[in-house]
Amino acid sequence: MTTVQRQPRVVVLGGGSWGTTVASICARRSPTLQWVRSEATAVDINTRHRNTRYLSNHVELSPTLEATTGFAEAAHTADVIVMAVPSHGFRSVLTELAKELRPWVPVVSLVKGLELGTNYRMSQIVDEVLPGHPAGILAGPNIAREVAEGQAAAAVLAMPDQHVAANLAQLFRTRRFRIYTTDDVVGVEMAGALKNVYAIAVGMGNSVGIGENTRAMVIARAVREMAKLGEAMGGHRDTFAGLAGMGDLIVTCTSERSRNRYVGEQLGAGVPVDDIVKSMNHVAEGIKAASVIMELAKRYGLPMPIAREVDNVLSRRSSAEDAYRGLAAEKPGHEVHGTGF
Amino acid sequence: MTTVQRQPRVVVLGGGSWGTTVASICARRSPTLQWVRSEATAVDINTRHRNTRYLSNHVELSPTLEATTGFAEAAHTADVIVMAVPSHGFRSVLTELAKELRPWVPVVSLVKGLELGTNYRMSQIVDEVLPGHPAGILAGPNIAREVAEGQAAAAVLAMPDQHVAANLAQLFRTRRFRIYTTDDVVGVEMAGALKNVYAIAVGMGNSVGIGENTRAMVIARAVREMAKLGEAMGGHRDTFAGLAGMGDLIVTCTSERSRNRYVGEQLGAGVPVDDIVKSMNHVAEGIKAASVIMELAKRYGLPMPIAREVDNVLSRRSSAEDAYRGLAAEKPGHEVHGTGF
Repeated sequence: MTTVQRQPRVVVLGGGSWGTTVASICARRSPTLQWVRSEATAVDINTRHRNTRYLSNHVELSPTLEATTGFAEAAHTADVIVMAVPSHGFRSVLTELAKELRPWVPVVSLVKGLELGTNYRMSQIVDEVLPGHPAGILAGPNIAREVAEGQAAAAVLAMPDQHVAANLAQLFRTRRFRIYTTDDVVGVEMAGALKNVYAIAVGMGNSVGIGENTRAMVIARAVREMAKLGEAMGGHRDTFAGLAGMGDLIVTCTSERSRNRYVGEQLGAGVPVDDIVKSMNHVAEGIKAASVIMELAKRYGLPMPIAREVDNVLSRRSSAEDAYRGLAAEKPGHEVHGTGF
Repeated sequence: MTTVQRQPRVVVLGGGSWGTTVASICARRSPTLQWVRSEATAVDINTRHRNTRYLSNHVELSPTLEATTGFAEAAHTADVIVMAVPSHGFRSVLTELAKELRPWVPVVSLVKGLELGTNYRMSQIVDEVLPGHPAGILAGPNIAREVAEGQAAAAVLAMPDQHVAANLAQLFRTRRFRIYTTDDVVGVEMAGALKNVYAIAVGMGNSVGIGENTRAMVIARAVREMAKLGEAMGGHRDTFAGLAGMGDLIVTCTSERSRNRYVGEQLGAGVPVDDIVKSMNHVAEGIKAASVIMELAKRYGLPMPIAREVDNVLSRRSSAEDAYRGLAAEKPGHEVHGTGF
């Protein structure tokens, strides 16, 4: 006989395109409440089952998804928290959450970035602000619009306890959204934070005129470079060759919608980084991440040549051509154990 | 004081596009002789520094590259052998070579495939026919035309002895062709043999209408699936996330010139495999490799679901839509340790 358990109540914090997409997926199976800042968005979700501001009007959300602007109401009923706020607002939302959240409730982050100043991964912030709450991340090659429109996709859910991960995975899993699990939280979080810098590198290459061979080389070496830093920080190298690392990097490098690749292409065309940032609606995480990687590289004593060249171009110490020349000048060594590019 | 050593004489066996490209690269640094079957090609190389039949007329080969149709003449002067003949002719050329070749001469294969019937890797054939000769492989994301035209690219040279690999790498290395080294001969050879099947899978997906997310998912899972079989056969998983595995797969999946991706797209459009083969000038290695993978999967007790679906479509047991439905039906498990798709 199977035990019948109460379905957990999922609360998604954040009203952007990906948060909404994930909330809509969860709502198909479990009672799901999405906290959004804008009253108009809440009304849009509740009455029209749309988030017109962040997703196309064509995307119909699950009719059972409810939205609210009442933070406390959302927070204190949650059995599972999904964090879909930008990295710069992550800690303050968590601090508010701490006042309301019941004990033991797991926190799943959708955020691919590190905290400015501390360089903390999002789950580290959870550990600090909400000690005792299992903290993990869901990440992968997921363009929100494509997933929302029902294209098949996959992501990996990382939680420190693999059993918890396997259990939580059921909330996010559909026939078209495959959820793999892992216990490598550090690896998945670092892959998400690092890959944007490598997408900028590929973008710079596109404008310098690299061919298919060169791009595949840069991607392969980027995966190795990410894995090196990730392992030094306690992650597993396999994660970087998986969905959250290589998979996400491939999407970021090939998709028309990638902000970070666009930044690289603009840099390659000689546009100063400040002008690029001004011309964009959204933040390209890779811009901030490049200098962070260089700090981490220093701390762990790793060369990280691709990230170094991207950082040099972002800091206007060199051009995209210089960057690719710089990489070409490195002597290739052992493919896995070599330290350079 | 540096010792001055005699430059080794490189002999490249085979007159195709990639063999010619590699021969031309070697000729820049070392005396290099290319054995070709066609007198016209030999004259083309010797007098016009072109291989018009296999490379564009725009591609000018190194003027120091010499070509001959005299097999024995080429074979007995060699200090290094580069094998650039198709896999089905590999053993017979080696058997001829055995009569002429001086002892200890290393044999570097450029061939990405397994021997029909035995499923031997090319270096295993070398071990059998030329025992005592170090045997390895050079492979990576290398579209011959792009490399010949001087686009930056990278490859990995695998030899059982890493010192030999590092030494031989100097023959192939230029400012624009980066040669990494490894001791994982099994991994590099298996990556080269396996990846074509996965390129067919991606090609089938293109015609079924998969998006960027789905393609990235299939590539990421393909790398994992290849690594699983490769490890069972004695390779290292890192190799499959490297240039010869993931790197080559990315090129094969994105390049306009990929034969295997084309086969997948035609299969997806419902064209029977025999008609596809008839319409092509060259063999698409993935067609043969799919059934070989299924044999190996059986021998090592591994499920290999992506290869299984490709094999089903090739054997006309199912359609490309069925194949993608079959994959979608598999339950995702642990990203690294799970056994399914």
